[in-house]
Amino acid sequence: MPNLSGVDLASLTDTAHRMADAAAKVTLRHFRSANLDLSNKDTAGFDPVTVADRGAEDAMREVLDAERPADGIFGEERSRTFGESGLTWILDPIDGTRAYISGVPVWGTLIALDDGEQGRIGLIDQPYTGERFLGVPGTANHAELRHRGSSSAISARRCGALTDATLFTTDPYMFQDAEADAFAQIRSQARLTRYGTDCYAYALLAAGQIDLVVESGLAAYDIAAHVPLIRAAGGIVTDWQGGDCRWGGRAIAAGDARIHSAALEILATVA
Amino acid sequence: MPNLSGVDLASLTDTAHRMADAAAKVTLRHFRSANLDLSNKDTAGFDPVTVADRGAEDAMREVLDAERPADGIFGEERSRTFGESGLTWILDPIDGTRAYISGVPVWGTLIALDDGEQGRIGLIDQPYTGERFLGVPGTANHAELRHRGSSSAISARRCGALTDATLFTTDPYMFQDAEADAFAQIRSQARLTRYGTDCYAYALLAAGQIDLVVESGLAAYDIAAHVPLIRAAGGIVTDWQGGDCRWGGRAIAAGDARIHSAALEILATVA
Repeated sequence: MPNLSGVDLASLTDTAHRMADAAAKVTLRHFRSANLDLSNKDTAGFDPVTVADRGAEDAMREVLDAERPADGIFGEERSRTFGESGLTWILDPIDGTRAYISGVPVWGTLIALDDGEQGRIGLIDQPYTGERFLGVPGTANHAELRHRGSSSAISARRCGALTDATLFTTDPYMFQDAEADAFAQIRSQARLTRYGTDCYAYALLAAGQIDLVVESGLAAYDIAAHVPLIRAAGGIVTDWQGGDCRWGGRAIAAGDARIHSAALEILATVA
Repeated sequence: MPNLSGVDLASLTDTAHRMADAAAKVTLRHFRSANLDLSNKDTAGFDPVTVADRGAEDAMREVLDAERPADGIFGEERSRTFGESGLTWILDPIDGTRAYISGVPVWGTLIALDDGEQGRIGLIDQPYTGERFLGVPGTANHAELRHRGSSSAISARRCGALTDATLFTTDPYMFQDAEADAFAQIRSQARLTRYGTDCYAYALLAAGQIDLVVESGLAAYDIAAHVPLIRAAGGIVTDWQGGDCRWGGRAIAAGDARIHSAALEILATVA
C-alpha cells in the first residue's frame, strides 16, 4: 500500500479535479442534445450515450496518462489497466445513465482513488448544476462542495432513529425477493422515502441533506467514490453485512452510525 | 373572459418573471439551510418549510399588489382573493416540498395565469439550477427555457408508441387501488419509468426530454402552470378522461397525441 502524504493527496486531488473538468466538457456537450436516447440508435448502431460515456472516460484517461502514468485505471467503459504505483483510479464517466437520457441533472461523473486497502479520494461531479462534491478521509480529513465558484465544507447530519430518517434509493423496483422485503421494512419505518437520484443521493447524504441510501446490484465504479466522500463527511458506507462495499454489490450509506446499525439489523438478514 | 392582446400577454409575462424572481430570493435563502426539515420543528412550532413557502407566496403577492391589483390570486398558502379583471394567478411557491427538504433541485415555483376559460401563461422556475421554463400558448404561441442568462426555444418531442416512451411520476406509491393498476399497466409498457421529480418532470416534457407524466391527487396549484406551458410546447395535458385538468385531480401529460391516446385508453377505465 503506498504511503500517501498530505502533499501527495493534495496533488492527487488536483488531478481528480482536472479529470472531472475534462469529463464535464464531454458530458455537457451531449446532455439534453436532440436524440440523446437509447431507443434512437440509427441503423449504423450509433448510440450517443455510449459516445458521451466513452468520450468522458477517455478524457479522464488522457489526464491520467499525462499526470499519473504509473497508476492503474478501472473504468466502466474501457478495459482495466494495472499500474505500478499501487494506486488505482476507479471511474464512472456517467453514473445514472437513465437520468442523463431523461434530462434530470442527478447523474454524475464519479472518480475514486484507491490505494489497495481503501478509498483515499472520492469525487462526485454534477456539471449541469455546477456542483462538485469531494471527500478526502484520513489524517487530512476534509469534505467540501464546490458550487459555481464558491466552496463550502460539508458534513453528514445526525439522525438517531429510522423513524426520523429521509431514505433514498434509485429505483423502487431494483430489489429482488428478500432484498425487496428488507427494503420495504426500512421504507415502512422511514419518515420519507424518495427515488430517482442515482449518485446524487450519496452526495446529498455527504452534504447533510438526507440520512440513508440503500441500494443493490452495484458495480465497483457505482460506489467506489461514495465511500471516501461519505467517510470524510462523517458518515458510513458498508455492504448489507456491515463489511467493505467498495467493490460493489449491496450498499447502505448512513449519515449517523445509529441508523446505520438499525438498518443493518434488517438488511443483514438477507442471504 | 378578458380579451388579451399580444402586448397584454408580454406585459403579463414580465410580471410573471418578476414574481418568480421575488420568490426565488426566499426559496433559495432556505434551500439546504441547516435544520430545513419537517421533523425539526422546535417547541414553538417554527417550521422553516412553511416559512419559505409562505414567504415566497407573499413575495409574489407583493408584485401582484403593485402591478396587477385587479387580478385574483389563488395560492397554496394564503386564502383565495377574487379580482375584478377576470384574470386569476394560480401560485405554488414551492411545488415538491419533499424534494425541497431533501436538497434535490427538482422542486419549483409554479405561476399560472388563467383567464377563466383556460391558462394563458405557465411558468416553472427552478432557481438553484437557474432554469426557468415559460409557455404562452395561443396566437403568440411560444415556449422557452431560460438558463443562466441564455434563452432557447423548447418543444415537446414526438413519440409514437408507449413502448418507446419515457414515463415519469413523483411517487410510485401515490396511486390508490384502480389507479395503481392502471399506472402499473402503463409502466409495464413504457420503455423507461423514473420517479421523484415533482414539477420538474412536466418541465422536461415541455423541453422534449421525456414523453409522459401520469399523476393523481393534484391540487389546482400543482398543475395549473403545466397546462399552458406544455400546450405552448406542442404537448397535451388532460385529466384521465381526456378533459380539462387545470383545477387538479388526476393528470396525464404527453408530448405526442398518439401516446396520450394510448395511455388514456388505460387510464379512462378508472372510475
